[in-house]
Amino acid sequence: MEKLHAIIPAGGAGSRLWPLSRQSRPKFLLDLETSGKSLLQKTALRLAPVSASITVVTGHKHVVEVQKQLQALVDLKKLPENLPVAVITEPAARDSMAAIGLATYLLAKKYGDDAVVGSFAADHSILRPAVLQDAVRVAIGAADAGYVTTIGLTPESPSTAFGYIQPTDEEIAEGAFLVKRFVEKPSVTAAAKYVKVGYLWNAGMFVMQSGVLKKHLAQLRPDMDKALSHIADSWSLLERQEILNREWKSIEPIAIDHAIAEPVASQGGVATVIMSESGWTDLGDFEALDAVAGDDPSNLAHVVIDSKAAIIRVPSDKAVVVIGVPDAIVVDTGDALLVTTRENAQRVKEGVDALKADGQERFL
Amino acid sequence: MEKLHAIIPAGGAGSRLWPLSRQSRPKFLLDLETSGKSLLQKTALRLAPVSASITVVTGHKHVVEVQKQLQALVDLKKLPENLPVAVITEPAARDSMAAIGLATYLLAKKYGDDAVVGSFAADHSILRPAVLQDAVRVAIGAADAGYVTTIGLTPESPSTAFGYIQPTDEEIAEGAFLVKRFVEKPSVTAAAKYVKVGYLWNAGMFVMQSGVLKKHLAQLRPDMDKALSHIADSWSLLERQEILNREWKSIEPIAIDHAIAEPVASQGGVATVIMSESGWTDLGDFEALDAVAGDDPSNLAHVVIDSKAAIIRVPSDKAVVVIGVPDAIVVDTGDALLVTTRENAQRVKEGVDALKADGQERFL
Repeated sequence: MEKLHAIIPAGGAGSRLWPLSRQSRPKFLLDLETSGKSLLQKTALRLAPVSASITVVTGHKHVVEVQKQLQALVDLKKLPENLPVAVITEPAARDSMAAIGLATYLLAKKYGDDAVVGSFAADHSILRPAVLQDAVRVAIGAADAGYVTTIGLTPESPSTAFGYIQPTDEEIAEGAFLVKRFVEKPSVTAAAKYVKVGYLWNAGMFVMQSGVLKKHLAQLRPDMDKALSHIADSWSLLERQEILNREWKSIEPIAIDHAIAEPVASQGGVATVIMSESGWTDLGDFEALDAVAGDDPSNLAHVVIDSKAAIIRVPSDKAVVVIGVPDAIVVDTGDALLVTTRENAQRVKEGVDALKADGQERFL
Repeated sequence: MEKLHAIIPAGGAGSRLWPLSRQSRPKFLLDLETSGKSLLQKTALRLAPVSASITVVTGHKHVVEVQKQLQALVDLKKLPENLPVAVITEPAARDSMAAIGLATYLLAKKYGDDAVVGSFAADHSILRPAVLQDAVRVAIGAADAGYVTTIGLTPESPSTAFGYIQPTDEEIAEGAFLVKRFVEKPSVTAAAKYVKVGYLWNAGMFVMQSGVLKKHLAQLRPDMDKALSHIADSWSLLERQEILNREWKSIEPIAIDHAIAEPVASQGGVATVIMSESGWTDLGDFEALDAVAGDDPSNLAHVVIDSKAAIIRVPSDKAVVVIGVPDAIVVDTGDALLVTTRENAQRVKEGVDALKADGQERFL
């Protein structure tokens, strides 16, 4: 039996993919690769071969759809029958540390403090799952050696859209290297330097013994440790929901990177396993999406003149004419329309923020 | 009683305004000024005060809607009750000479060869109708002196979208000057020169005695003269439609500019009345349209970031985000979408032509 207890935090609207991705149908629920499966389903499927259980943490609004999508995989016999799959509902979004922490404390209760947990984003894409599965197996070794182990990606470009991991050459377990530090999304100049000297992309994949995470949290965020412990202790009681709701209100919204990865790295407690050639992408904007999903060939009423490398996503029965806008990004969902360029792909979030500020909640 | 028998050829889809303007609802039928009236209705209304009759020439597809729009003006008492208003149906589009010729030969039959006819586009916009009405009154004088009289516009810019008129300083009737020649849409350099030396924009407005036009046509296009005479002679007969259909098949498709204005000018038979400050525009593309019709203020879900001077026309219940496309033109009609820039506004026709070449007739 595989040792990983996979945790998939499924939150975040993916507002850089607006208007495809919306609060009501966020990125992870969409079939953005046009594979016939959602990103969440694909995530569960590629983790299943190395997992002893899968736990998805999501919000109230999406729990029904998440359960439906996972059940569909079970019904189609795509997930092993004996693989425990659970969905936990967060009372509210409190960033990744709270979501991963909640699942970890519950898994520790059930499987013990030496159970290895690992967190993986619900809305990324990986072309070659076997490469990830190999990396997870190596990471489990480092986790068993007591390290918070991150799977770092060999950069394909000096991207400024990701944080970076600075590894050392000290191999603390087979295939796992001590991490010196994490750095935030860099400038163009810094990114070029990082890539040159062998930094890795931080894709937010962390593997560790549940007891190790609990220990770090107790030291670094004692309030959160207390809240999560209280919730986990009362999970089987009648007042579970009441306690969860109450504790959740006061819980600090913080990313696992800031709460755990960065401070523990500075204590020498983080290792990294280097993953290369997996075909990973975070599908972080329309340019990234375009690289994965081809144009919809069913729609013939597209005319593109003097608009090299245009990305067009519109309803299949709609005519589109684009003239003189190179690198255009045109996304139409019927009720909403985005027009921008590849250069501005990362700025789509600004548009969504502006709609929100204008009180146009119904379009978010 | 006013002397002008106004002829309004209502044809042409206005494909530079696609997807607003379509073959099924062409530009002249649309309320593009958001005035509550179509361009055709506005044209009839501004000609009515100087007209003894109004004749609209249009195609089979639009005759019902044209009649409906004109009847609406009568019902609202916007047109004088005693003003004869007629709609003539062309069997097929044969360019402006055939349409204006057909109306002229019929009007000559009814009102005589000294009746003054004048042709005016159905899909232009004039902010100050009184300026046009004054110009028409002056043009009637020149027409009565035997001239084909064009109303030329003082250029507002060295536009390359219009043909030009070269006037002389020889005043052949009060306020009307002999025309030396007409020139086609010029290059940028030529246009600048033309404007500098006092050439006028040719807006396709021609005023003349019906007998003068018939005489020129008999000399320059004898086949067309014969065909139109035959049609006019049989108009009150039972076989009218049969003869119209038969003659129309062989009729030459040519613009009145080429058939009459240019050759007659070289014979010294064309005069021009100069019209200034009328606020005329041909609404020839979205940039021209934008100058006339303001943004729709009812729609609040528009976010425009780093896209100065963007022109946005979308359904009022649709959210739009435009980022980093200065001078963007975004026009969405639900079933069709145009994305281009002001610089490329005149090229929209290329997109429509490409859709046609792709067999996407339903979107034209």
